[in-house]
Amino acid sequence: MTTKDVGRAARRGPYAKSGERRQSILDAAHAVFAARGYRGGSLQEVADRVGMSQTSLLHYFPSKSDLLMAVLRRRDEITSGSFPDDMEEGLVDSVIRTAVFNEDIPGVIELYTVLCAESVTDGHPGRAYFTDRFERLRASYGRRFAELAAVGRLRPGVDPDEAAMSLVALWDGLQTQWLLAPDDVDVAERLRGYFKLVVLPEA
Amino acid sequence: MTTKDVGRAARRGPYAKSGERRQSILDAAHAVFAARGYRGGSLQEVADRVGMSQTSLLHYFPSKSDLLMAVLRRRDEITSGSFPDDMEEGLVDSVIRTAVFNEDIPGVIELYTVLCAESVTDGHPGRAYFTDRFERLRASYGRRFAELAAVGRLRPGVDPDEAAMSLVALWDGLQTQWLLAPDDVDVAERLRGYFKLVVLPEA
Repeated sequence: MTTKDVGRAARRGPYAKSGERRQSILDAAHAVFAARGYRGGSLQEVADRVGMSQTSLLHYFPSKSDLLMAVLRRRDEITSGSFPDDMEEGLVDSVIRTAVFNEDIPGVIELYTVLCAESVTDGHPGRAYFTDRFERLRASYGRRFAELAAVGRLRPGVDPDEAAMSLVALWDGLQTQWLLAPDDVDVAERLRGYFKLVVLPEA
Repeated sequence: MTTKDVGRAARRGPYAKSGERRQSILDAAHAVFAARGYRGGSLQEVADRVGMSQTSLLHYFPSKSDLLMAVLRRRDEITSGSFPDDMEEGLVDSVIRTAVFNEDIPGVIELYTVLCAESVTDGHPGRAYFTDRFERLRASYGRRFAELAAVGRLRPGVDPDEAAMSLVALWDGLQTQWLLAPDDVDVAERLRGYFKLVVLPEA
């Protein structure tokens, strides 16, 4: 072990601890924002959950909006499968697989639903994130529907970009109804129903 | 003028004034809840907007959740056309007419979008209202789709109740995208696109 290695080992302890604390703060913020929204949730409540002072918390995330953006980026990692450009499987399979996966993470879906709606309000720090997300999702699904159209599998008269916008909207709306009445709403099944209307079976 | 009439006239002043104040509080609460959500909006902010103390405001609405429910009931009056059972016109016409009408009341749509999503969180006083609203909307649209099915105008394979759930979900999701990007999203046109998929033209 060189002198440099010793230095590294000595530093590893506090660094690892710092990473864990950051992670705990993100977990707590996720829970608080999902339960009370961004505006209704307070930094104090997040700090209380991880047992640190607000001042210590601000050492990790300099502001409440920084914390929000970190929570949203982490959500993207958890649901990384949701951008269909990255998928090797077909559009229909990948959407249904993601919808089924989402049934097991109601807390993440709740966070998304609450923050997305809240972001339409004036001056919300998440507004650019959600506006950009919708633009990219529409473009991404639009390309996948265009691929289906190119091989004659999109119903005649259906526009790929319009189908993309409707698919994203339908999915969001179904998730809201599902969060309120999980026994009555089957998101994946209803999405399957939409695909049956617009995607033709393979010849 | 009889003695009774004099009594009435004397009372009319304060009563009318009380009604006006109630109305001003509802207007202010609508704006505050639409801009900041229920949890993020405060009674103090509502009171400040109408220039009264919080104590005076609580004389009209005994609690913040009472005020929320009054705002939601008033929203129902503004958008009373949205329950299709009450409509004499056909399902498609009535939905498109309502969607076009909604383009002129973005503040009301914002209030609905923000509070509906917030209502999925634990202990939210609007949860029963929205759960019940979705149940009634699904049942109501389901009956209208069933009527179309009965005259052979629903695409074979489409279930009336499933179409109802999807229509409500699609509409909500489109409104959210529209609030974030009004120039890119045409809610009425996309709903028309959905109807083209599930409703067959008249024979």
